[in-house]
Amino acid sequence: MKKLLLLFVVLASLDVTAQGGPAWDAMFRAIPEAGNIGEYMRIMSARPHHLGSPYGKENAEWMLAKFKEWGWDARIENYDVLFPTPKERLVEMVAPTRLRLSLEEPAVGVDPTSSQRSEQLPSFNAYSVDGDVTAPLVYVNYGRPVDYQELDRRGISVKGAIVIVRYGASWRGIKPKVAAERGAIGCLIYSDPRDDGYYVDGVFPDGPMRNKDGVQRGSVMDMPTFPGDPTTPGRGSIPGAERLDLNQTTTLTRIPVLPISYGDAQPLLAALAGDVVPMDWRGGLPITYRTGPGPVRVHLKVAFDWSLKRVHNVIARLEGSMYPDEWIVRGNHHDAWVNGAQDPASGMSAELEEARALGELVKQGWRPRRTIVYAAWDGEEQGLLGSTEWVEHHQAELRDKAVVYINTDGNGRGFLNAGGSHALEAVVNSVAQEVEDPQTKASVWKRMQALEIRRGPAAVRNEARSRPDLRIDALGSGSDYSAFLQHAGIPTLNLSFGGLDPSDGIYHSIYDDYYHFTKFLDTDFTYGRALAQTVGSLVIRFADADILPFQFTNLADTVQTYVTELQTLLRDAQAEIRETNRQIEEGVFTALADSRRPFRQPVVESVPPSINFAPLENAAAQLTQAAERYRKSLEASRARLTPDVIQTMNKRLIHSERQLTDTAGLPRRPWYRHLLYAPGYYTGYAVKTMPGVREALEEKNYAEAEREIARVADALSRGAALIDELTSALDKLSK
Amino acid sequence: MKKLLLLFVVLASLDVTAQGGPAWDAMFRAIPEAGNIGEYMRIMSARPHHLGSPYGKENAEWMLAKFKEWGWDARIENYDVLFPTPKERLVEMVAPTRLRLSLEEPAVGVDPTSSQRSEQLPSFNAYSVDGDVTAPLVYVNYGRPVDYQELDRRGISVKGAIVIVRYGASWRGIKPKVAAERGAIGCLIYSDPRDDGYYVDGVFPDGPMRNKDGVQRGSVMDMPTFPGDPTTPGRGSIPGAERLDLNQTTTLTRIPVLPISYGDAQPLLAALAGDVVPMDWRGGLPITYRTGPGPVRVHLKVAFDWSLKRVHNVIARLEGSMYPDEWIVRGNHHDAWVNGAQDPASGMSAELEEARALGELVKQGWRPRRTIVYAAWDGEEQGLLGSTEWVEHHQAELRDKAVVYINTDGNGRGFLNAGGSHALEAVVNSVAQEVEDPQTKASVWKRMQALEIRRGPAAVRNEARSRPDLRIDALGSGSDYSAFLQHAGIPTLNLSFGGLDPSDGIYHSIYDDYYHFTKFLDTDFTYGRALAQTVGSLVIRFADADILPFQFTNLADTVQTYVTELQTLLRDAQAEIRETNRQIEEGVFTALADSRRPFRQPVVESVPPSINFAPLENAAAQLTQAAERYRKSLEASRARLTPDVIQTMNKRLIHSERQLTDTAGLPRRPWYRHLLYAPGYYTGYAVKTMPGVREALEEKNYAEAEREIARVADALSRGAALIDELTSALDKLSK
Repeated sequence: MKKLLLLFVVLASLDVTAQGGPAWDAMFRAIPEAGNIGEYMRIMSARPHHLGSPYGKENAEWMLAKFKEWGWDARIENYDVLFPTPKERLVEMVAPTRLRLSLEEPAVGVDPTSSQRSEQLPSFNAYSVDGDVTAPLVYVNYGRPVDYQELDRRGISVKGAIVIVRYGASWRGIKPKVAAERGAIGCLIYSDPRDDGYYVDGVFPDGPMRNKDGVQRGSVMDMPTFPGDPTTPGRGSIPGAERLDLNQTTTLTRIPVLPISYGDAQPLLAALAGDVVPMDWRGGLPITYRTGPGPVRVHLKVAFDWSLKRVHNVIARLEGSMYPDEWIVRGNHHDAWVNGAQDPASGMSAELEEARALGELVKQGWRPRRTIVYAAWDGEEQGLLGSTEWVEHHQAELRDKAVVYINTDGNGRGFLNAGGSHALEAVVNSVAQEVEDPQTKASVWKRMQALEIRRGPAAVRNEARSRPDLRIDALGSGSDYSAFLQHAGIPTLNLSFGGLDPSDGIYHSIYDDYYHFTKFLDTDFTYGRALAQTVGSLVIRFADADILPFQFTNLADTVQTYVTELQTLLRDAQAEIRETNRQIEEGVFTALADSRRPFRQPVVESVPPSINFAPLENAAAQLTQAAERYRKSLEASRARLTPDVIQTMNKRLIHSERQLTDTAGLPRRPWYRHLLYAPGYYTGYAVKTMPGVREALEEKNYAEAEREIARVADALSRGAALIDELTSALDKLSK
Repeated sequence: MKKLLLLFVVLASLDVTAQGGPAWDAMFRAIPEAGNIGEYMRIMSARPHHLGSPYGKENAEWMLAKFKEWGWDARIENYDVLFPTPKERLVEMVAPTRLRLSLEEPAVGVDPTSSQRSEQLPSFNAYSVDGDVTAPLVYVNYGRPVDYQELDRRGISVKGAIVIVRYGASWRGIKPKVAAERGAIGCLIYSDPRDDGYYVDGVFPDGPMRNKDGVQRGSVMDMPTFPGDPTTPGRGSIPGAERLDLNQTTTLTRIPVLPISYGDAQPLLAALAGDVVPMDWRGGLPITYRTGPGPVRVHLKVAFDWSLKRVHNVIARLEGSMYPDEWIVRGNHHDAWVNGAQDPASGMSAELEEARALGELVKQGWRPRRTIVYAAWDGEEQGLLGSTEWVEHHQAELRDKAVVYINTDGNGRGFLNAGGSHALEAVVNSVAQEVEDPQTKASVWKRMQALEIRRGPAAVRNEARSRPDLRIDALGSGSDYSAFLQHAGIPTLNLSFGGLDPSDGIYHSIYDDYYHFTKFLDTDFTYGRALAQTVGSLVIRFADADILPFQFTNLADTVQTYVTELQTLLRDAQAEIRETNRQIEEGVFTALADSRRPFRQPVVESVPPSINFAPLENAAAQLTQAAERYRKSLEASRARLTPDVIQTMNKRLIHSERQLTDTAGLPRRPWYRHLLYAPGYYTGYAVKTMPGVREALEEKNYAEAEREIARVADALSRGAALIDELTSALDKLSK
């Protein structure tokens, strides 16, 4: 193991010093100061700064000035987007007793910004339709398809009901979407104390977690269909853009939705009758959780102002000295639901400090070879509006020039979390080796490795010890990288530190503010500095690399794991259905039923057919071979590289990720073009890898699965072909 | 699979009709009436009837009369035993605020017997020492050794503290025992709503579960050392018996203990500071669970009346017509903590109905070949007093004559649970095939099998489908079988129905009464009837069998699984310690530590040595071969059996289980003589199989493990030798 690590460090350091000049990234890492990051956060979170708010615009203008002060060429780019804001919000229990819910987050004495009531957006879910409904209430756990299957087994329908669903496990927008598919006519989403309240830790202001009045705001737009302005799918919402009418849009909810606190939810849930819910549906309230329906009836009324609001994206550049048309893009959003210290200022402040430090490097003589574009996005919270409209607007140019997009969002204390394109896995590992963890003073990589080893099983431990690179996650959705990666096919990374603090307790509430952050989270901003050091190092690595640091063997290795996963998914489904059918035949279910309780015998299902995975296996093998050949050739010929060859190779490398996309997009959601990574149609945030194949298997559409296998195989072959061209170019050098 | 089952049914029916006359057990099963069982319960639970109470004595006398009325030769056998009852109980929080706990279970309007206050024992733990202590409070989860290891890792000591520990996961007597070993000076045991309160189902009187005032009484005697009267270890507490002084006893607690409700526990737990506890330590109260210590200080004072109380065991007989000196013993206790409808009347009433039905059979002409002894034990709740003193008192005769002991205790709706000697596995399966499940009208065996199949994994499912007999559990402790099986070496079964209702909600509280049982549990007593049918059929099967229905191939198969488990236990311990040591060396733990929180690096431990399992493997193989030879010989020669051979063989069979015991007993607890089954020294109820070896491995005493391996191997060899003698006797017949 030691030998492998040593080899890795040697290779990594080759890369670092490839420019031949001073190690600019090491110099860079000495510049960021934690105190500055805290100060940016204090300023940005001083007042509510949601999309369309006066302080949001002020923040954008303040950042613009800062970028300019630090030597960047900066401007604000505007888009006009649909963002409905509440005009009326009402929830009342009308049976068995009458009770009107408060729907209010009170100010907390010790927390100075929590009282800025006039500027706060009230608690609501953006892109809920208007509605006024009264119906029986049914508790549906996290509201995933699997939860409704459990209700089906108990003979409980939500048709014509209002569902009460808890936050967590799936992205919130999935909850009203599935509820509506199941026939519900309204949806209340509440924060259960089991998930982010007192069960986890003390509640605000005594502790970091959600108190009984805290509410999670958030978008419920159907982002797995497409993010961005619902009225301008696939094109930038520039002033005057062609727009769909509201009734033509496809990403609003179909039923009215409102989020509530657990203080508001408790009397509703406590009054529900019906079956006791399964163990893993039970939350942390001191009640017996039951499904309903009966006797609780709820009246839900919401109405919104459907006017357009203006996005203020701040876009700043340092022009490349050698390859100005190769762009390194880096972003974080600046808008918040309310004061937003953790989300987004903890990430945005780190980005600003990177910008300051890069400006410092320029003053010290650094000239980045490639163009660096720093972005502060607006309207992320509503549906990745600022970033998506920008990518859609500049798509042609980005597909031609963007080398990489590096995203951050909130940040905390602990371990580096990295997700993204697997061709970037090696460079992330390399940088993680060089950034010092603020607590342990070892590298952040060492701490990541320790986490992997500790959370084993044996196979994970062995890999963490022996594989040169720790694995990075595949990206689903939930932050501004989505349009870059999944629509435009730009290699992407998303980075943050975290894991030592439970951080969701004030998420999207008025209590996510400077007081909370500096009392409970990265209180001295040292992890903000570590984030700036990590991302800035990556930016410099990309900006100055001779050959762009894509490493395809890790990608190929990851692709092989996906192929295996998909085959296992099908085999497991076959085995499970066979077993259930057998148990039905044996009378197992009738033998287990309790005659006192409702019982529905499961029905015999046809066993999924075996399908042809060969194209995928062959293409994955082809990619693996191509990647390995390229790795060897590059290693052998690095010393002989000429500027011409470098430029030709990089032009090809920029397009490597694009080979994995298909402009036809995924079935039924053409906006998503990447064939390896997409947010799940029914998970929302969580990724589905090889989504066309995987979701077809999950939805039991086996003909579609075979078609998608062919498309993914083609994409992998295109990628392999591009890599082979690179290898050929290198091999000519050797001759 | 079908073929195997068919074979099994054929073999079973051979057995049933072996007597050649009418199928008495089938006739028997038609007699028990659910209504009678309910009526017995109503009578027995009409008033509190704990050991030493007037109504306990009345119940004994009423049962005596009933047995006599049904044609049994019955009498009451008395013992005088130590049973401390409370004189004073006080718990108060003295810091950070003052609060005196109620320690009261209030009467509930709809529940008529809950108001019988003058006859109720208050809530307390029997065999707590007297004490008056004031100390900081520490929450220790379930109070198992593993929980204190977790506290150690956090640097938290309970030395000089009062611990608050939740009921569950281990037997309650373990909790003060381990607390005292760790230096605590007092112990409060509370019922967390996560375990048997609102988290599980609605609370009494609206639902079956424990309400905020409900308290679980119970013994905290150190039963894993020995059960029965602490002052007469190993001998019957007959009037005038030689007794230890109180200060010579070894099974009282070392620190004062008191149980409390979650209503009483909540303010104490809510006021605790310190670390948030691990996820699986968190209960269902609406608070953040923390370990303490600080700032809570508690004053605990308990004092008891240490006088002797009188046990009233009811012992009834039907004399055997052919083998009067071969006894089939069957028992259930009749004493309760308060009104005790579920515990013990649900089982005791079934036993009474069996007795009535057996009496009916006698009226119809049945003469059991062997003597049947029906017992109603007193003082079970305090520490299996009535049964243990009786076994100790009659030990010589029992070891000579007892064929089997069949125990029941509480009963509920659902699935037959069977535990006991594995030589009895086949006969239990055979009877379970013939008893009809009240709900499904299929056999109770079919329902047991369905449960096994459903709860799979694949290996369990396959076995449930293909092994002729479903496995029965090994017995630990917790009911009156302990002295029979583990002290006297008598083959034992413990049976109950259950699994459809959560039944612990009123366990050992004033609310375990007729109102509760008839509203929430086996409301129509049909499972009471099924229990009577099952146990009565077994009794008849044993009483009338030609060759006693011991089946050693299942025993040998089970023994092989224990040998494998022990080897795996050691290998896993070796692997785990090696891995932890490696992680320490790699710096994994320091890399993961959060400098904001207390952290203790684990210490390098020496890796357990490999030890010699060969004697155990050889002896298990010997037993397997002997069992298989016996099975074949018996099958081949059953038609040629002569009365003489039958009698000789049965005399030997009666002693087969005794071969698995050793009069020297287990290390440090000589009362426990069975080398295959014992309650765990640190689990209390839960069994440790091959306990000498297993606990030596768990306690890292490898020299002792090797010595115990030799003892278990010797016992298995003795068993195999006895079986070989049986085979020889049969083989002579064939010649």
